[in-house]
Amino acid sequence: MPARHDIEVILVGDELLRGQRGDEHLAFLGREVRALGVRVSRAHTVGDDVAAIAGLVRERLPRTRALILTGGLGPTADDVTREGVAEALDLGLEFDEPTWAWIREFFAARGRTPTDANRRQAHFPAGSEIFANARGTAPGFAVTAGDAVVFVLPGPPPELQPMAREFVFPRLARLFDLPPLRVETFRTIGVGESQLVEMLGDAAAGLGAFTVSWLPTVAGVDVVLTARRGAEAAAMDAEAERLHARLGEALGTRYFERGERPIAGVVGDLLAARGETLSAAESLTGGTVARLVTAHPGASAYFLAGVVAYADEAKRELLGVRAETLGQYGAVSEETCTEMAHGIRRRSRSTYGVATTGIAGPTGATPHKPVGLTFMGVAWEGGVQVKRVIYPGDRSAVRDRAAHGALWLLYDHLRRHA
Amino acid sequence: MPARHDIEVILVGDELLRGQRGDEHLAFLGREVRALGVRVSRAHTVGDDVAAIAGLVRERLPRTRALILTGGLGPTADDVTREGVAEALDLGLEFDEPTWAWIREFFAARGRTPTDANRRQAHFPAGSEIFANARGTAPGFAVTAGDAVVFVLPGPPPELQPMAREFVFPRLARLFDLPPLRVETFRTIGVGESQLVEMLGDAAAGLGAFTVSWLPTVAGVDVVLTARRGAEAAAMDAEAERLHARLGEALGTRYFERGERPIAGVVGDLLAARGETLSAAESLTGGTVARLVTAHPGASAYFLAGVVAYADEAKRELLGVRAETLGQYGAVSEETCTEMAHGIRRRSRSTYGVATTGIAGPTGATPHKPVGLTFMGVAWEGGVQVKRVIYPGDRSAVRDRAAHGALWLLYDHLRRHA
Repeated sequence: MPARHDIEVILVGDELLRGQRGDEHLAFLGREVRALGVRVSRAHTVGDDVAAIAGLVRERLPRTRALILTGGLGPTADDVTREGVAEALDLGLEFDEPTWAWIREFFAARGRTPTDANRRQAHFPAGSEIFANARGTAPGFAVTAGDAVVFVLPGPPPELQPMAREFVFPRLARLFDLPPLRVETFRTIGVGESQLVEMLGDAAAGLGAFTVSWLPTVAGVDVVLTARRGAEAAAMDAEAERLHARLGEALGTRYFERGERPIAGVVGDLLAARGETLSAAESLTGGTVARLVTAHPGASAYFLAGVVAYADEAKRELLGVRAETLGQYGAVSEETCTEMAHGIRRRSRSTYGVATTGIAGPTGATPHKPVGLTFMGVAWEGGVQVKRVIYPGDRSAVRDRAAHGALWLLYDHLRRHA
Repeated sequence: MPARHDIEVILVGDELLRGQRGDEHLAFLGREVRALGVRVSRAHTVGDDVAAIAGLVRERLPRTRALILTGGLGPTADDVTREGVAEALDLGLEFDEPTWAWIREFFAARGRTPTDANRRQAHFPAGSEIFANARGTAPGFAVTAGDAVVFVLPGPPPELQPMAREFVFPRLARLFDLPPLRVETFRTIGVGESQLVEMLGDAAAGLGAFTVSWLPTVAGVDVVLTARRGAEAAAMDAEAERLHARLGEALGTRYFERGERPIAGVVGDLLAARGETLSAAESLTGGTVARLVTAHPGASAYFLAGVVAYADEAKRELLGVRAETLGQYGAVSEETCTEMAHGIRRRSRSTYGVATTGIAGPTGATPHKPVGLTFMGVAWEGGVQVKRVIYPGDRSAVRDRAAHGALWLLYDHLRRHA
């Protein structure tokens, strides 16, 4: 049952119901409000329809102290969230001159003139508190209804996120005044959900201070502990430590992170701390390894170069793979993978070279080389390790799994050679 | 108001409300059921809680003829969707021997033994039709309640998607027996939403056979037309043609696709048709251009090689950028970008070389080179074009926008030199 410290979210947009776009807001809001001790107890997705929005707001308002609506504040005719909220609360829409002045200025700075459609964006339900939008023309707003507050934010994430941080979260913190909700994440790679449950046995079943979620990711499973209300800090510490130790025993380096960093971030931080460097030679993964590594700010300290060698000629010329190797074993082989890893390492003079080659599908398979067949390698001064795996899934899944697998192989090497 | 041909979706999972994962199912289901003429009128997200699930199913069932629930069928204690549905419909859970035999076989094939937790997965509300899951241990099921059907599918997308296609969509097609819902997508790049509305003027406002959605994407805006019920095919054809023509006039090559292909797919198909090839030299985008291009199946026909040259040394050695150029103008400059584009083209002997260099942030900015500053280039036999842009947004947004911008620059060149 929803508690007084729970909030609800209403995602507005025909595009969400028609499958033209996935939602990003619920994950953002759910994650961020936890730090305030607040939970989202339920979320709703509704189309761009005044009556549907108004009906939903009216229905949910008696059940929560805060409702956050996202989307539908734009200038086009399908943007009707402000009208829906006004109708739900029996309020008229009022024109706000300072907002209109600001919108005109926003356009003028870009050498343009706002239209009547933009003028609609300067209207708010009577009594609203208006939230300035530094990145777009749609301000947000909040309206109080009894002891509840309705927050309304524009849909584009680059606008919504800073506005939520500046205006909504501080108000929620004052409204609820709760300690943060403790959440602990333990990240694993290369094991399935029920296999992991089995390996952990009682260690996960016996948690009393937390609830446990098992979240399959592209390459493994995250075990997430969320504090139960009223649990003691000492009990939480003890249980989290016990799970941490058990994961290490049962999974070894397949348990790679207590925290939120992705494998590329963990590997990057290790390299930075060791003063070592990395380069990548990719075929199958087509740039995914380089992209994951360079997504981490500061990657330029340890990532020297990547080569995406799709054509055999590129493997020869950019990486120094021998024509005989390609001829005798093929591009998808342990031998080619070995030479790719050595080749990128030598050419970029990095401490480590990582390589991937394989068959992403849907075409390219042969009787001996099925879709998903992947060779991943790590080369260092005087050595190389290559691993063969057949990944399940479609082209996109195979590419992502192989990239994570290759980064894990390097992680495993780093941990074994500290 | 929901119509008889509308369905509703219930997404189950604490992780969705806590922001530990974004939902992918609603977008998939919304998109796929359109082909059956069916719309999702509303969606709900609820936690792993028997009473909350049961309450929601009971509340929504009188309002729709089909309800699809996703998630919460796994073996762990937090998976309670089957219990919630059984409670909502006042049905007991019955053990299904053939499913249990199948689960044991699934484990045996992997050298493991199922646990009591897996035995729960062989229980279904009485009278369920059971949907086999070829990729996991959680079967789905459907239960009829009056003239409505409740479908329940497991959460992992690689399991849910084939099961929805095999079991759910054919049953929805029979239940509703409607013609497909026509949807037309027009993709643009490099213009904002209200700018686009302005440029199109009456052309978009005057559509009667369709509703229009404006969907900002990472790099532009998609204009999506969805047929109104009962609209004539001839009227739809005429309106879609008119918008297509108007977009071409107003936006030129910034209107790049009538359909669903991303810019990398459009560019790839053009290159394949022309028998030309591409290579990419990336700094700022860190492998994103290569990854976008190689995501398109068949990319090996035209994508020869990519180099991610993060370090100056890599720019010199792998791409042939001159030390003097780097010294005099810096790595983030028109001159370096030019040499990168020429360098990758020459070294991989491709028809075109694409290059990116810039400042992704959060660090690395200087007074003259702010975060977001990007140079993108396209080189061909005897020529090069470089463009300078300052992209807004965080590291991830800048990287993605720059990669799309670079691919568009090539697209623009290809269209001008047919």
